[in-house]
Amino acid sequence: MRSLWREGEQIKMIDQRLLPQKLEIFTASNEQDVAYAIKEMVVRGAPAIGSAAAYGVAIASDPKKAAELLKATRPTAHDLFYAISIILNAIEHGEDAVKAADKYAEEIVEKCRKIGEHGEKLIKHGYRILTHCNAGALATLDYGTALAPIRMAKDKDIFVWVDETRPRLQGLLTAWELEQEGIEHAVIADNAAGYFMEKGMVDMVIVGADRIALNYDVANKIGTYEKAVVAKENGIPFYVAAPLTTFDKSIEDGSKIEIEERDAKEVYGIYPRKFRARNPAFDITPAKYITGIITEEGIIELDE
Amino acid sequence: MRSLWREGEQIKMIDQRLLPQKLEIFTASNEQDVAYAIKEMVVRGAPAIGSAAAYGVAIASDPKKAAELLKATRPTAHDLFYAISIILNAIEHGEDAVKAADKYAEEIVEKCRKIGEHGEKLIKHGYRILTHCNAGALATLDYGTALAPIRMAKDKDIFVWVDETRPRLQGLLTAWELEQEGIEHAVIADNAAGYFMEKGMVDMVIVGADRIALNYDVANKIGTYEKAVVAKENGIPFYVAAPLTTFDKSIEDGSKIEIEERDAKEVYGIYPRKFRARNPAFDITPAKYITGIITEEGIIELDE
Repeated sequence: MRSLWREGEQIKMIDQRLLPQKLEIFTASNEQDVAYAIKEMVVRGAPAIGSAAAYGVAIASDPKKAAELLKATRPTAHDLFYAISIILNAIEHGEDAVKAADKYAEEIVEKCRKIGEHGEKLIKHGYRILTHCNAGALATLDYGTALAPIRMAKDKDIFVWVDETRPRLQGLLTAWELEQEGIEHAVIADNAAGYFMEKGMVDMVIVGADRIALNYDVANKIGTYEKAVVAKENGIPFYVAAPLTTFDKSIEDGSKIEIEERDAKEVYGIYPRKFRARNPAFDITPAKYITGIITEEGIIELDE
Repeated sequence: MRSLWREGEQIKMIDQRLLPQKLEIFTASNEQDVAYAIKEMVVRGAPAIGSAAAYGVAIASDPKKAAELLKATRPTAHDLFYAISIILNAIEHGEDAVKAADKYAEEIVEKCRKIGEHGEKLIKHGYRILTHCNAGALATLDYGTALAPIRMAKDKDIFVWVDETRPRLQGLLTAWELEQEGIEHAVIADNAAGYFMEKGMVDMVIVGADRIALNYDVANKIGTYEKAVVAKENGIPFYVAAPLTTFDKSIEDGSKIEIEERDAKEVYGIYPRKFRARNPAFDITPAKYITGIITEEGIIELDE
């Protein structure tokens, strides 16, 4: 089962707002439904958002209008904008839009598989790997980006530290995927990642990405930057795993990437009452903290 | 109102487990009640724990046995052990134990007031200050450690970033205190602290401490280490505020401080179901990340 697929003219997706307590399928019948699903995080993760947007344009009666609607849902993930341009381009060339969106989805899955193959070689026997947010099958239709190498290394007696990833707790999606794979893991408060790094209990960090600038600065889930700084301070390799669809060659460096600030309620929603809060959803990790970027075409080594 | 006080033979404390939704008073009539209150975090914060333990020994019929019981509640905060030794010593010298505990409490309050006076000088007009956990009046009977300088600088048009401090969310106690003082603030997910630091939106960090080693390594609430590393990376002054009762001269460096690992349920308790989790309650911030330590006797400058 993938996290998103097409059935005729309908786009089906695992409703990630309800996981891990309930596995329910959300059905999108038009571009409005898809836009809602992206904005409300029924579907999340840059590659999965890209695929959802591709289908949103493909099934719309007015693809250009649908493209504008979908582009306005979330600003940070590059795959969203890239996937839309691919489908608009296919339409312009007289291709079947739905088939183009199917192809886009298949390619994402294949790219993630290849990311897994390349990344798996970095993981040694007994490695304890820290990951942040969910860059798993849910975020990418199948395999995952950060989780693809981990899945493929499952026989290497590995252990995964799972940042819970406040405020949205996407770490639980990661823990859920790891449970199903039978991979040893523990969820930790985001505050505890540095503790385990400093104790020498983390051999490697792998995270996903939402947008990668020309200079390899990476936008990813809020908190990624802190983990990268602390990993470098402790000499721990820090890898980003992402398909080339996440690379934005029109953006020179991370400072120019728009960071989505979401409703403060995502923060104070678990509190007994409202508090004044701020809620940036992503941060920028400068390339200097990144050891390498694992792509479907191989690993871009950044550590000089 | 203080967070803890004596009424006759009873020790009264604000039940910090119920704040900020409910202000209820917990009454301890004997050392067992006090031990429960410390272990379950009815009372928390190193100086307040110290004062509670002092009273626990003072009201016990067998002070030595009470001391052992109370020492076994929580391992990390030094004030606990220090306060117990003060009361046992007073008893040995034929002094009134309850009066000695009263004196200990008064001295804590006065120390915090002085910490506020010294620390306030570091805060410039318009400063945006990040704090982690609650090192406020609740944690110290009155004034606070980290919050004492902030309280005294309230007319300087300051703003406070409040880390929510998972898993126990003590940041809400801080936000509650700041609300009452009318000090501008916003609660953020712990993951977002680095984002605001990197954006140049944090001028200074002030935190409390649970134990300070001879070389000035600091044990404090889990997550403090990450914030300190990221602050240093961004050239942001990082101050620890603590009375001298938190300094443990018998411990050479931070690696020898025992770190309490609490029930994993504190982590997964907010999740829809149980997940495998780990829950270290404190971490060690090496002295090299600390700009200075604000004490009642002045500021120990550590930044060379």
